[in-house]
Amino acid sequence: MDPRLDLIYKRRSIRAFQDRPVEKENLTELLKAGMAAPSASNGQPWEFIVVTDPDRLTQLREVLVHGKYNAPAAIAVLANLSIAKKESSTRFWVQDCSAAVENILIAATGLGLGSVWIGAHPKEEVTKQIQDILKIPADIHVLSLIYVGYPAEEQPARTQYEEIRVHWQKY
Amino acid sequence: MDPRLDLIYKRRSIRAFQDRPVEKENLTELLKAGMAAPSASNGQPWEFIVVTDPDRLTQLREVLVHGKYNAPAAIAVLANLSIAKKESSTRFWVQDCSAAVENILIAATGLGLGSVWIGAHPKEEVTKQIQDILKIPADIHVLSLIYVGYPAEEQPARTQYEEIRVHWQKY
Repeated sequence: MDPRLDLIYKRRSIRAFQDRPVEKENLTELLKAGMAAPSASNGQPWEFIVVTDPDRLTQLREVLVHGKYNAPAAIAVLANLSIAKKESSTRFWVQDCSAAVENILIAATGLGLGSVWIGAHPKEEVTKQIQDILKIPADIHVLSLIYVGYPAEEQPARTQYEEIRVHWQKY
Repeated sequence: MDPRLDLIYKRRSIRAFQDRPVEKENLTELLKAGMAAPSASNGQPWEFIVVTDPDRLTQLREVLVHGKYNAPAAIAVLANLSIAKKESSTRFWVQDCSAAVENILIAATGLGLGSVWIGAHPKEEVTKQIQDILKIPADIHVLSLIYVGYPAEEQPARTQYEEIRVHWQKY
């Protein structure tokens, strides 16, 4: 693993967090990183909700089967096709927003934070729960949540590279 | 923009490339970075085809309306649900593979390479063209291509951060 790519290999899903809150400056930096992602035709369909209010985080944890971790912050990643800059966002918002999520996860690593991707779309029961708790209008798509905080566990850098998954020139 | 996140902000879509080929070692490093991405339940549904053969690259450029750039290498990012390690990949492969794409794009920046994401899925006419040229079986999903090479253009580091896209606590 090339040390120039440390940020990528050190990004691991972190599911145990310190009580320490995440500074607003760092949360904003994560959003800057998210909005540095590429998107189809540069359509930028994304919106974000940053949640640090303990009551609302508790509500999320209560309903989300796969989101019970004690993070002091969550970022909901959404797509709003009415503010997207291109028609192609209609077909590509999942990919565009996933790139933004991955940027945020890697950025968290770079800032000394831990993070984990909590998948929602296309599980409608999950997106509905998030939509209700965060008061998201029905015409906005919910892709996922990201839990963020200072890590209370360590995970080693790694790749899961498998040569069997690689083809050369053709399948 | 925090300098610790340089790799993220310096990743820009590069559409003009030097003739210089990309070393096999670097191509493999890109795949290692791709396979360091998170995936739903760690299902890892991805497969990759690395194309450096000039004839096949020419074939791709000839048919792809949005893929006419002169890159000396292309990586096709695929999902193979029959080798995915979890059932959840059925619903999450687009997100999983998008995270792998974004890792590869950022890794390219880290290695001094340029790259651009050529979207395919869910445009069936495009996935079919790629499937034909790269001899991909019908049951394998094509997400996208990534063109990779040494850059022949410079793009400044940036974020497209817009405060209007950020909500706090709720929508």
